[in-house]
Amino acid sequence: MAGAPAPLAVSLGDPAAVGPELIVTAWSRRIEVELPPFVVVGGARSLAAAAANRGLALPIAAVGSPAEATDIFGTALPVLAGTDAVCEPGSPTVTGARLALASLDRAVALARSGEARALVTMPVAKAELAKVGFAHPGQTEFVAVSCGVRPEDAVMMLAGPSLRAVPLTVHCALSEVPGMLSSAMIVRKGRIVAAALRDDFGIARPRLAVCGLNPHAGEQGRMGREDAEIIAPAVAALAAEGIDATGPHPADALFAPRARTGYDVALAMYHDQALIPVKALDFDEGVNVTLGLPIVRTSPDHGTAFAIAGKGIADAGATIAAIRMAADCAARRARNG
Amino acid sequence: MAGAPAPLAVSLGDPAAVGPELIVTAWSRRIEVELPPFVVVGGARSLAAAAANRGLALPIAAVGSPAEATDIFGTALPVLAGTDAVCEPGSPTVTGARLALASLDRAVALARSGEARALVTMPVAKAELAKVGFAHPGQTEFVAVSCGVRPEDAVMMLAGPSLRAVPLTVHCALSEVPGMLSSAMIVRKGRIVAAALRDDFGIARPRLAVCGLNPHAGEQGRMGREDAEIIAPAVAALAAEGIDATGPHPADALFAPRARTGYDVALAMYHDQALIPVKALDFDEGVNVTLGLPIVRTSPDHGTAFAIAGKGIADAGATIAAIRMAADCAARRARNG
Repeated sequence: MAGAPAPLAVSLGDPAAVGPELIVTAWSRRIEVELPPFVVVGGARSLAAAAANRGLALPIAAVGSPAEATDIFGTALPVLAGTDAVCEPGSPTVTGARLALASLDRAVALARSGEARALVTMPVAKAELAKVGFAHPGQTEFVAVSCGVRPEDAVMMLAGPSLRAVPLTVHCALSEVPGMLSSAMIVRKGRIVAAALRDDFGIARPRLAVCGLNPHAGEQGRMGREDAEIIAPAVAALAAEGIDATGPHPADALFAPRARTGYDVALAMYHDQALIPVKALDFDEGVNVTLGLPIVRTSPDHGTAFAIAGKGIADAGATIAAIRMAADCAARRARNG
Repeated sequence: MAGAPAPLAVSLGDPAAVGPELIVTAWSRRIEVELPPFVVVGGARSLAAAAANRGLALPIAAVGSPAEATDIFGTALPVLAGTDAVCEPGSPTVTGARLALASLDRAVALARSGEARALVTMPVAKAELAKVGFAHPGQTEFVAVSCGVRPEDAVMMLAGPSLRAVPLTVHCALSEVPGMLSSAMIVRKGRIVAAALRDDFGIARPRLAVCGLNPHAGEQGRMGREDAEIIAPAVAALAAEGIDATGPHPADALFAPRARTGYDVALAMYHDQALIPVKALDFDEGVNVTLGLPIVRTSPDHGTAFAIAGKGIADAGATIAAIRMAADCAARRARNG
């Protein structure tokens, strides 16, 4: 095993969701899409059931540690022995939530210890997780806290072939967004984004395009003052630090094809401002990356999709993209020491 | 002239903006893109200057009435004699604003009288228009009032090859949006949209997909209550009237490629929610259509673009699409009597 790089750790997600079938589909396409070795953290029976359901031949290799996974990966799907359950696709249960949480928790620990070189998380059901004592808004916050990072300093970026976008506020009512914006918050997250694009994505001098909050970025205060009073000073402060930040830009024009060539990442003020263009342009290849963590963490940018779980139609494109992106980011970090 | 259909009326827009060069470019491509006959309302010298600037051979035919334009259109650009001015591209002036307003005013009158069968408006500079006494937020409201329609019943729809979207609120601060939404307003505009898609766009039973306001359409009230308390009842009321309305849908997923096949128009709650996906997907072919008017009115979905006016690079795609869409809608209305 000496010298073989550590594999990625993939958490199972809710076993009744699309996670297991996407993992086995990704593994079955490992050669064609050039997947790096990964180990699934638990859930061997769920994975076997999902493979049977999708008609995939799937040798599963139960392994005791990630180190065993790298050499096995070419011929079998390595799964860490331990927690397991079989769940009916589409029907989330408390048993499934416990398995999802155990898988996530152990996968984070493996990434933190270096036994895994990055973490890829599959979708969980927040309502079910809450029933088993999970008190975080989502996996991102859990991962951040597990890594000793304040949740507000773990920055979600959506990345597809056409666009990278960061929502500076995420899971809150739209009416709360204006009150949550501050120049200090935009600057702090802007710094995290700039550093991560440089270190994890290999962009020497990343260009940050900052969206306005209001239509036409407020039109000189005619439609809201936040653009001029909160966002513009934050952009100026970032630029003063040597970060290539511009804006506030009218958000509707910023995602048009020609405009997208002018920046490496768009900073959006709220959830839909970032997610609408990413999903409109890159729905089946969108990756959710958490920036600002001591570990590399990615996730396919979609939910549990219980409505189509087990039907053999869920698209593995985003999962494949998430696995590849995690490996690429981890390799850049390793090269940079 | 008997029997020849009336031409469209095209207002000049601000003569220092991209309107004149887009009009002459569209006319020069009239055969290739199968343009219907139109008459430009005033501005012959601005059009001639724009054509010279773009290196286009442009015979201009000064006409006294729209009826003269139809037969001439194949060989010369018909322009209604009257108001005129030459303006430096990129430098708006009060003189130019007066010309823009005179052109718009007369073009609306021609469409109302039936001398023109539809109206296409080119972009104006609101700040300049305000200096010459124009008290409306934009051309849409001016056209509505000129037609005896309340501005709030003139509904803006953005339409491109990939997507039709209606912003239910438009030019206001984002913080004002939640307070502007009501079930009654959504129902009233939903009816106007459904009727227009049927009568003007020939969709027998249009499918309306209504966006949520909050992330994930509020997730059962976890992120804002407007989706459940305002939008859902409006959708139910529209459905009870026999209109095929669904929602509130999580807006981020609604514009993904597969989701777009499930509806004919998306009703968005605010400006950027509609404009971001339209411009991301259809930037150079986006048309702004005003629904609910006694006349057909379209416009290219972009602004004055003073920064590139006169540089020969403004794309005429949206202008061509606006002219063609206006003719198509007018033809459907004529067939329906």
